[in-house]
Amino acid sequence: MPAAISLITLLTDFGDRDYFVASMKGVILGINAQTRIVDLSHQVAPHQVEEAAYLLKASYRYFPDGTIHVAVVDPGVGSSRKPLLVTTSRYYFLAPDNGLLSYVLQEETGVEVRHIQNKQYRLESAGATFDGRDLFAPAAAWLTRGQQPNSYGPILRDPVTLPLIQPTWEGSVLTGQIVYIDRFGNLISNLTPLDLKELRGKTKRDQLTFRLGGVTIEGLVGSYSEGSASAPSALINSNGQVEIFLKESSAAEGLKLARGARLEAC
Amino acid sequence: MPAAISLITLLTDFGDRDYFVASMKGVILGINAQTRIVDLSHQVAPHQVEEAAYLLKASYRYFPDGTIHVAVVDPGVGSSRKPLLVTTSRYYFLAPDNGLLSYVLQEETGVEVRHIQNKQYRLESAGATFDGRDLFAPAAAWLTRGQQPNSYGPILRDPVTLPLIQPTWEGSVLTGQIVYIDRFGNLISNLTPLDLKELRGKTKRDQLTFRLGGVTIEGLVGSYSEGSASAPSALINSNGQVEIFLKESSAAEGLKLARGARLEAC
Amino acid sequence: MPAAISLITLLTDFGDRDYFVASMKGVILGINAQTRIVDLSHQVAPHQVEEAAYLLKASYRYFPDGTIHVAVVDPGVGSSRKPLLVTTSRYYFLAPDNGLLSYVLQEETGVEVRHIQNKQYRLESAGATFDGRDLFAPAAAWLTRGQQPNSYGPILRDPVTLPLIQPTWEGSVLTGQIVYIDRFGNLISNLTPLDLKELRGKTKRDQLTFRLGGVTIEGLVGSYSEGSASAPSALINSNGQVEIFLKESSAAEGLKLARGARLEAC
Repeated sequence: MPAAISLITLLTDFGDRDYFVASMKGVILGINAQTRIVDLSHQVAPHQVEEAAYLLKASYRYFPDGTIHVAVVDPGVGSSRKPLLVTTSRYYFLAPDNGLLSYVLQEETGVEVRHIQNKQYRLESAGATFDGRDLFAPAAAWLTRGQQPNSYGPILRDPVTLPLIQPTWEGSVLTGQIVYIDRFGNLISNLTPLDLKELRGKTKRDQLTFRLGGVTIEGLVGSYSEGSASAPSALINSNGQVEIFLKESSAAEGLKLARGARLEAC
Repeated sequence: MPAAISLITLLTDFGDRDYFVASMKGVILGINAQTRIVDLSHQVAPHQVEEAAYLLKASYRYFPDGTIHVAVVDPGVGSSRKPLLVTTSRYYFLAPDNGLLSYVLQEETGVEVRHIQNKQYRLESAGATFDGRDLFAPAAAWLTRGQQPNSYGPILRDPVTLPLIQPTWEGSVLTGQIVYIDRFGNLISNLTPLDLKELRGKTKRDQLTFRLGGVTIEGLVGSYSEGSASAPSALINSNGQVEIFLKESSAAEGLKLARGARLEAC
Repeated sequence: MPAAISLITLLTDFGDRDYFVASMKGVILGINAQTRIVDLSHQVAPHQVEEAAYLLKASYRYFPDGTIHVAVVDPGVGSSRKPLLVTTSRYYFLAPDNGLLSYVLQEETGVEVRHIQNKQYRLESAGATFDGRDLFAPAAAWLTRGQQPNSYGPILRDPVTLPLIQPTWEGSVLTGQIVYIDRFGNLISNLTPLDLKELRGKTKRDQLTFRLGGVTIEGLVGSYSEGSASAPSALINSNGQVEIFLKESSAAEGLKLARGARLEAC
């Protein structure tokens, strides 16, 4: 368990127009005015827990040890769904128990999951619609003041996890899928260099073949600038995932593909 | 009057694409590099003073005492409209005198309104189009350096206020309106639990009836998860306002309603 | 060369939905947890280097001396395009060598351009798609820790610069262009008060005539509130540029004009 530092990240589906995010920050700074707050993203599509889980996976490990990651995409707010405090060897995570922390629970070591029950860390509120402000924000801020995880509530043995789709083999064909599409329309898959290594006999990059959306891509390129604006290319991106792109254009639009699209490699 | 702390919030209609917001932050940090700056929102629709007034109302009180709230939705910039510094028992507010602070003036105690005239707190500028950067930002930053409100300018007796619509009674029917629609399409009204208590003989939540946009809603639910995706429900939200919603869907789109729509309760 | 202060601004075309910006901030705070980070803008249109150059020009000088400006609009990421560290009398700038710093190189004094080559300031990465996180963010953060520019790499003599269009004279007509359109639809040109002074014999503001998009505008007004909603007006904006606007409406939409449109003054 790391010492909690005064650095809190916020990941929500609250957007940037309403009063939601600012209210959370006000509460945090009211408890500890020295806290640094970083917006991870507030543009998760409303209620899309899977999208939030991916965004968290893609960025949380770039923060210093002791960072407190608060993630609130919470269609079940006010119901009996449980608020969680997860402690790992490096970080703290606060989120509803709805699968948002699936990748964290899979990838981190020293994981301890607690059900936040201590009402001392909760704001009184007129309603039950805004646990981001009334529960998760103060609970996170109190960690920066030295409160210990075991004061938050009991250990939870069976947190909810999403069915994280792993690549599968069908004969000699490895099948993954597009798990995220970024602002540029790049198609990010769940295939990794480690997966590609298992493609027997394909020892060189240019021997690989990818298929998606009726298109075939031969080999990997090293950077976007080696691609083409008219035909998609594949590369290993900086997060270690196979990514399909069109040079300075949107592959998602060009290929008319959405999240969940199938990507084959052989 | 609280001691001003080095925490400034910014509420504007400047959006997040242009150089406006960053310029304000640069000016503030040039005057006091230790200031913490929190974006309240920059996505107020252009020139919509009422929307900004509501966003401020919904969030300002969650910040610690001494916070300096700067709100710049300012269609009259460069005209004779007055720049204001408002001091209350808990906060500072800087805004143009156009009604943006209407709720603050109504709800806060210990209110003192000053017309900012001291040119020492103003940046020299080639034009008169950007008081956010040239007047409000530096004026706010100098408060964090210990400058006193009475050095800013004279007391102003009659600041502009918007006609804030209060719920009205027509016989035994209470009529309010939708004052804000959030990112999720939830319809937030100006009816409060206190208003509902006055509905004579309706001592239980499930005896209430709401009508809006040709639809009737029976009773209040306790959380979004108790609602339905096909028919709207009502609840008391965490800001203490009656809110109409569709579960995991947009009530504004579903009911085709906009800000200002009439909501009846009986 | 100023002492680098712990203030970093970020200007990118990464948007606010993905994990890109947060990852950069995590890396910076991991190197120096005391750094203040200000978003200049992340809404540059994808790959639009010129737009980013203008946004930087319009805002960088409002930050305190020693600020480190990081600008990453980088279609050539992963190619042989060079990452730059530019030191000036007042600031530091880190950006790809693609013209993004054109205005800076033109306007600043004491300019020294270096090609960042020192791999110590670079994160190891699985791919070559995200130099914002893997190169520019850590290189900037190490400046706040006292690393000296000459440790980053050798002097570069011929950085890439964009053809920055200067106003031109055709007889007694001065021709500029619209270089930026802001959120409000205001049309910002590259004509300045200094340019207007050169219009011989036109010593008063109301003797000036502007022409753009088939429309003629007589004289300059002093503020937006002196304009009209139905016919465009011209003023000198707070950045010292001639700006064409419609009062509380979008001139870009009203006149159907885009960046690059021609503006004549006589």
